[in-house]
This record gives sequence, structure tokens and C-alpha cells, in this order.
Amino acid sequence: MKLHDLGEFGFIDRIAAAIAEKTTVKIGIGDDAAAVEPAPGHLTLMTSDMLIEGVHFDLNLSDPLTLGRKSLAVNLSDLAAMGAKPRYYLLSLAIPQRLDLEFLDKFISGMMQRADQFGVTLIGGDTCSSKGGLAISVTAIGEQLPQLVVRRSGARPGDLIFVTGTIGDSALGLELLRQGEKIGPLISRHLDPEPRLSAGIALAEAGLATAMIDISDGLLADLGHILEKSAVGAKMDLKGLPLSDQYRKEITKFSEDCFSLALGGGEDYELVFTAPVLLKDRVFSCMEACGVNVSMIGEITAENRLAITAADGSVYHPRRQGYNHFA
Amino acid sequence: MKLHDLGEFGFIDRIAAAIAEKTTVKIGIGDDAAAVEPAPGHLTLMTSDMLIEGVHFDLNLSDPLTLGRKSLAVNLSDLAAMGAKPRYYLLSLAIPQRLDLEFLDKFISGMMQRADQFGVTLIGGDTCSSKGGLAISVTAIGEQLPQLVVRRSGARPGDLIFVTGTIGDSALGLELLRQGEKIGPLISRHLDPEPRLSAGIALAEAGLATAMIDISDGLLADLGHILEKSAVGAKMDLKGLPLSDQYRKEITKFSEDCFSLALGGGEDYELVFTAPVLLKDRVFSCMEACGVNVSMIGEITAENRLAITAADGSVYHPRRQGYNHFA
Repeated sequence: MKLHDLGEFGFIDRIAAAIAEKTTVKIGIGDDAAAVEPAPGHLTLMTSDMLIEGVHFDLNLSDPLTLGRKSLAVNLSDLAAMGAKPRYYLLSLAIPQRLDLEFLDKFISGMMQRADQFGVTLIGGDTCSSKGGLAISVTAIGEQLPQLVVRRSGARPGDLIFVTGTIGDSALGLELLRQGEKIGPLISRHLDPEPRLSAGIALAEAGLATAMIDISDGLLADLGHILEKSAVGAKMDLKGLPLSDQYRKEITKFSEDCFSLALGGGEDYELVFTAPVLLKDRVFSCMEACGVNVSMIGEITAENRLAITAADGSVYHPRRQGYNHFA
Repeated sequence: MKLHDLGEFGFIDRIAAAIAEKTTVKIGIGDDAAAVEPAPGHLTLMTSDMLIEGVHFDLNLSDPLTLGRKSLAVNLSDLAAMGAKPRYYLLSLAIPQRLDLEFLDKFISGMMQRADQFGVTLIGGDTCSSKGGLAISVTAIGEQLPQLVVRRSGARPGDLIFVTGTIGDSALGLELLRQGEKIGPLISRHLDPEPRLSAGIALAEAGLATAMIDISDGLLADLGHILEKSAVGAKMDLKGLPLSDQYRKEITKFSEDCFSLALGGGEDYELVFTAPVLLKDRVFSCMEACGVNVSMIGEITAENRLAITAADGSVYHPRRQGYNHFA
């Protein structure tokens, strides 16, 4: 079947039919707006991310199912960075005529995989045609008790800086994709990132993180947001930077400096967070309970700068500063 | 100044600086997600609409300030159709390089005009570059007590059907724009629609409307959604259809059938709603108190069809069925 046979409302009905019911969803897809019952005493957290063909993804390098998974994952990652429990999402799609119904079904399936995994429910959105490329806009909605929400602004001098997982894999995976490689662990990290929801929520609910952000623009850029909002500085030692074995192996083909891409590449969707020194052991045990590796990469300082020490003890000057649209 | 001098984060800071504070906004622009405090006992209502260059608007026919006003207005119209009080919105923009900062400042100003008018606060979103046209995605968030929310599904046989304002003006305004006209009341209705928030909220809070929808796809299509969701039919008399004097004057240049465009044209952003016969007088006095004209255009029936009577008493067969993307 073709999309134009199904039509706008047929396509919406098809999506709506695949959604599991949730008791807090009072009105789902099929009215002018969705209505949900907020959890008493909780804040509602909301975040929107757009994914634009030719900017965020290339349909020659990504399959529709994985693109669907990623489109939701990157939004959930923002909720993870607040320590919020994800609940609902809205999906808006501007669809070029060249994309067929099979593509869209796979895209929606991928999105539903991530939705089911994290217990979030599609409650609404919009579909329309596009004269240009595919445009995907997702709004994700989560909840958390006010006192547990983790902001970017809470880092204090003396706090330790941690990062989950490994960094640079996604950026290097993108380079490999562009060189014609199709599969591999680094490429998977780029095409199908895992939002660190269990880690983010556990850190928030245990009261361990003083500030947190997810890495979308690159470690330096995103840590920079914490430093700016918290009005602090930091010192970082590259020796502590968590790089995967695959990354260490492949990066040598691209650069003599194995740290540059990891620090500035972006789209890791790992969490960077700060915690008081006294809670260091609890941070490690909390992350172990979540099954997430965590590394200590530095310390917050009162100075208004980020000082990076290279492996040989010298001062390291980063060559790239992370992704900035329009720059 | 150019957008690439300002950069992504400079552009976001510029927008954030223009926003009035609201006590229920606990975290606004500048973190991974926004956080708001829901009103106790209320449902949270959410709606997303995308506006795509070349599909929903033509930058040769619209100025940026008016486009900003409309981008928020069409989302607020969906909240009006639920009887919800608008509170917050998120804005995502994919911006092609050819658009300068002056364009964007005017667009944001227009949006802020509508936001200030209706007391809604920008709390977040996303900005990125676009390889194609300008893409605008807005998520609007409102609140209402559960028992007051008006759905599409509540129409019952015997209920009267009402519509606010006049219809067809917007569709005819678009035709005039395409023919090279620049200004006039019909064109204003198309470029700068007025969301019927006071009317929608008043009808909900007075418990008068049994079902309600806003006209975006065309009166017949949108009334059709009420009929489908309520599992009822309707009879309509074209004599009662509210057409403006300007519409009646201009439509003769385009069509011998003055009703076709009004019934199927779309983008009126008026409200169609149903109410019990016994509440008819209260509907008129409620709308008068809001300063909004309202017309009775028909009646809900138990038959599964929409029967339309022409001015001469004959059966009227509509030639257009409203807008359907992909159709």
C-alpha cells in the first residue's frame, strides 16, 4: 500500500492502533490535543529535539528502524540528564513524497521499540507532507519530584566530574560510515545510541548528582554548559577519559591525537555529572547497580576555566569545541 | 549581525532573554529539559503542529512577524478546541542558511506577541540548521479540570451544531494571495488567524459544549471528525452558514458555488461545537460575553451520515472534502 492510498488520517489510525494503553493517558491520539494526568507532587519535564534529513541523518547511511529508535532515544536522553522518569511523547513528521509506507512503518516500529523499552507512550503529534527532506520533531515528557530534578547549575568547587560509558565512539562511527563501512560497534553507537535513563534516574533519586547533562554536542561543549550555568571551572586529566578498545584501535587511522574527537565529537548520549567527593564510592556502587560503567574524569574548581592535562602531564589545548549549528 | 556570528547558543540566549517569568515554570530555557509545576487536580493537555515551508507557508506571501504569530496561533487553536487554558509552549526550528537574523528576530517577535496576548510562556525547544526549507514545530501545553475538557466524541442526537465567526475567509484569502493581492481582510484571516481561546474556554467552563473541534482542514472534514468520534450523523442547512460580506463579494470571482470553498477550504481556526437544545440560549449569551459571533448551522442526528440542504431546499453535494496530507 502507498501512503497516498492510506492518506493522512489512515496513517494516523495505523499508528494509534499500535499503542498500548496507559491509565494516566486520559485522551490519546485522535483529538485536538492529548490529555494526561500529572503525578501528584511531581514536576512535568518537557524537551523537544528535531532531526532533519541532511543535517542529523543521511538516509543512505541509516535504515528507517534504527532512525526511529534514535529519534526517540535522543529525546529520552535529555530526560535522563534531568533525572526524570519518561512518560509520554509527541511525534511530528514532515514526510517527502519519495518515502513509502514501508519506510514509515519501519520508522514507527523502531520508535515503538524504544518506547516499549522505557515505558513511554505516544500521545499525539502531527503528520504532513514535505517539499524537502524528512523532518522529525519529538517532544518527550517526563516526571520527577521537584527536589530530585538535577540541573546543569548545581556543580560546586571540589565536586568530582564523572562520565558514563565511553566517549568518542559515536563520532568515530560516523567517520567510518562516511568512509563506506556499514556495521560495527562504533557505527552502532552512532546510529542507535542508548539513552542512559536508568543511570540518570538512579543518580537523581539517590541524591548523588549535583549537576548533570547528556553529551550531544561533545564532552567539552556539554561540560562547558555545566561550568557556565554553575559559574565554576574544572580540571580534567585525559588519562581518566574512558575510551573504548575499538575507539583506540580505529582512531589511529584518522588522527595522531586520540582525544580530540572524543572531546569534541558529540552524539555520545552519555551522561556527564558532578558529585561531592564524599559521595564518590556511592556513585560507583549506584552505577554498578545500574549496570553502567562510570569514570571519574576531573574535578570542579572555583576558577573560571577548564584546565586539561595531557597524558604526559603537559597542558592540553583542545582543537575542536563541539558542534554548534549555524557556526 | 549574522546568525552564524551569533551561533546556536547565542540565538537561544537572545530568545531566552525576552521571556517573562512565570512562577509555575521551575526550569525554563537553558537546561536539558524544561520543568513546570502542574496545577493540582488538572489534566495537562498537549498538542504539536508542524509548519513546513512550501507546504504550510510561502515566504513570498507571508512576512516573518505574521508567520511567527500564526505558528503559535494554530497550536493554541487546538487547545481552545479542548476548552484548555494555554500555559506553555516549546518551539523547534530548522533554519536554512538563507534566512538572516532579522527574519528570525521578527518571527520570534510575532510569536511572542501571541504568547503575551494569551499568557503562554516559551519554556524550551530546539534550533538547528536545515538543508531544505524552514521547518517550524510547536508543542503547546495547556491545563483544564478533567470534567471540563471537551472532546470530539461527546455529540448526541438532537444536539445543535454551532460555529464561531465566519468560515471560508482564510481559504479565499489564500486564493487572493496567490493571484497577487497583498492585503485585505480575507488575506489577514489566512495569514494571521485568531485562535478562539476565550470562546473555547468559556464553553468548556460553562459546561455548554458536548463536542468541539477547531476548523483546520475545512468545516466538513472537521465536523466529520466529530461525527465519526461521536458515532452520529448530522443535518446542516447552508442558509445558516456564516459567510462574511467580503467573502460573499469576492467568491463570485472564483466560483458560482459560494459554499464549496467555505465548506472545504480549511484554516479557518474557528470552533465547531455541539450543545444540547436546552442550552441554546446560554450558548448565544456565553459567546456574546466573549465578544464572539456564533451561528447555529445544523443538528446532530442518529443516522450515520451528513445531510446538507442547499438554500433552495434541495440536497447539496459538496465537491471538496477538506485538506488531507498525502491524499
